[in-house]
Amino acid sequence: MNPEHSLRDFMRSCQERVERALDARLPAADRMPERLHQAMRYSVLGGGKRMRPLLTYATGQAIGANADLLDGPACAVEFIHVYSLIHDDLPAMDDDDLRRGKPTCHKAYDEATAILAGDGLQALAFHVLAQDPSIAVPAENRLAMVETLSQASGPAGMVGGQAIDLDSVGKKLDLPDLENMHIRKTGALIRASVRLACLTRPGLPAEQAGRLDHYAKCIGLAFQIQDDILDEESDTQTLGKTQGKDRGHNKPNYPALLGLGGAKEKALEMHEAALESLAGFGPEADLLRELSRFIIQRQS
Amino acid sequence: MNPEHSLRDFMRSCQERVERALDARLPAADRMPERLHQAMRYSVLGGGKRMRPLLTYATGQAIGANADLLDGPACAVEFIHVYSLIHDDLPAMDDDDLRRGKPTCHKAYDEATAILAGDGLQALAFHVLAQDPSIAVPAENRLAMVETLSQASGPAGMVGGQAIDLDSVGKKLDLPDLENMHIRKTGALIRASVRLACLTRPGLPAEQAGRLDHYAKCIGLAFQIQDDILDEESDTQTLGKTQGKDRGHNKPNYPALLGLGGAKEKALEMHEAALESLAGFGPEADLLRELSRFIIQRQS
Repeated sequence: MNPEHSLRDFMRSCQERVERALDARLPAADRMPERLHQAMRYSVLGGGKRMRPLLTYATGQAIGANADLLDGPACAVEFIHVYSLIHDDLPAMDDDDLRRGKPTCHKAYDEATAILAGDGLQALAFHVLAQDPSIAVPAENRLAMVETLSQASGPAGMVGGQAIDLDSVGKKLDLPDLENMHIRKTGALIRASVRLACLTRPGLPAEQAGRLDHYAKCIGLAFQIQDDILDEESDTQTLGKTQGKDRGHNKPNYPALLGLGGAKEKALEMHEAALESLAGFGPEADLLRELSRFIIQRQS
Repeated sequence: MNPEHSLRDFMRSCQERVERALDARLPAADRMPERLHQAMRYSVLGGGKRMRPLLTYATGQAIGANADLLDGPACAVEFIHVYSLIHDDLPAMDDDDLRRGKPTCHKAYDEATAILAGDGLQALAFHVLAQDPSIAVPAENRLAMVETLSQASGPAGMVGGQAIDLDSVGKKLDLPDLENMHIRKTGALIRASVRLACLTRPGLPAEQAGRLDHYAKCIGLAFQIQDDILDEESDTQTLGKTQGKDRGHNKPNYPALLGLGGAKEKALEMHEAALESLAGFGPEADLLRELSRFIIQRQS
């Protein structure tokens, strides 16, 4: 089968699968407090590439994990990701009106509800990992999932990256500082998406888990570089969020540091390093390879 | 020994103990991103009654748990509590300038940092439960701790209660609705403080855990009623936070619904019901009894 075709099929079927899984794990819209639940559902459902869940399912395929074990981890990672978008869009943060092609949570609801919806999604992520019956793995592995996701989301991960990002507005970061920021801000959660899938297979050799982790590190950076490139090159409509906002906010980014050509080259290098990490895997890792390719070629 | 005296000693020694335990689990102030870490430490350290940790330690004493196992759970609950205060004080929420007698987090730092500090503390709470080496209990019990705390913090618990609170401004809630709000908003985390201590003792009979849970429900409500009474009666300086703000924001509360005398009577009833739940326990539960008394007698 044409690999591009098979990736498209995989992405569509995963996106449908994760949409159902998210829906089933979110509190019902008609249960009190309705407005909170509706805001959570509004922000989570019906949009997004689901890049992190895709990585969880594709990693599962690479290591022969049972896909039924992956719905819980995939949802947990996505809940964390969406909560971070909600809070990131708040007036006190990036002050954005548009996300995934529709009004941001605080625009569609209000700021207080958006803060609480984000807070609630974070708690829900850990609740899913702790008790979701579909995650039929030993308690030690579930605990390692909670450890992985809380580390990736907290001050040493995503939240820390956001804070470095805030501090860097108007400053000149050098390449190592910029990379450190992105490794935390988006990289940590991308690595967690892969690691959670590994944790559904208790006997997985550490060496394989290590290679997959290195793959995740590489595509995490590639993803961020491509994000920066799109922020420079694309238009708001294609992006579904405000275009050029990094430049507008005078935020450091790869094109500013390396030039547009240099940034594209760096993204390609990261893609090649990701493929290299998968050298020991056969065709069962093809989806991971194609996802890496997709990440540096995507236009939104 | 005079029980009042022994409670005072217990509170002081617990407060010192939890302060050290919190300090050791917070990210260092001089590690990047410094401003985030400093804001987290500013809000967590050096203040507060530590009511929830006190309940965790006092429950531990009632069931003969090893106090060394309780530091992690006590810190996790307090991190959740402090994150909720930081977010609750934000301009889009209660818009408060004063907390625990000093400027609120967003006043001392800025709104974006306060949002992230709260987010980071929530992640840290689950990270502590998942991996803190001092919590030497079976993985199943740790997982039950994560389940308990995420349930108590999320849409079905604290965050849900906050959302009901927001929705209720300017509305007339009846007593069952007001109670439902408080059971979630403050009650859920107070119950979690007691439940986490129970989970450090794997063999604890379900009947004892059930009685302690009922105790926690009763004092949770008593705590909230007393909060409402203090909001009416006390002054800003004694309280360490803005006084009369419920009335100012036209929020429903117990004195408004039952009158000041009726509210005081209700608090006393809850205290008596709490004592009743402890009827099967001997002097090892005296601290829990005294804490219940303290809750309805406190002036701040």
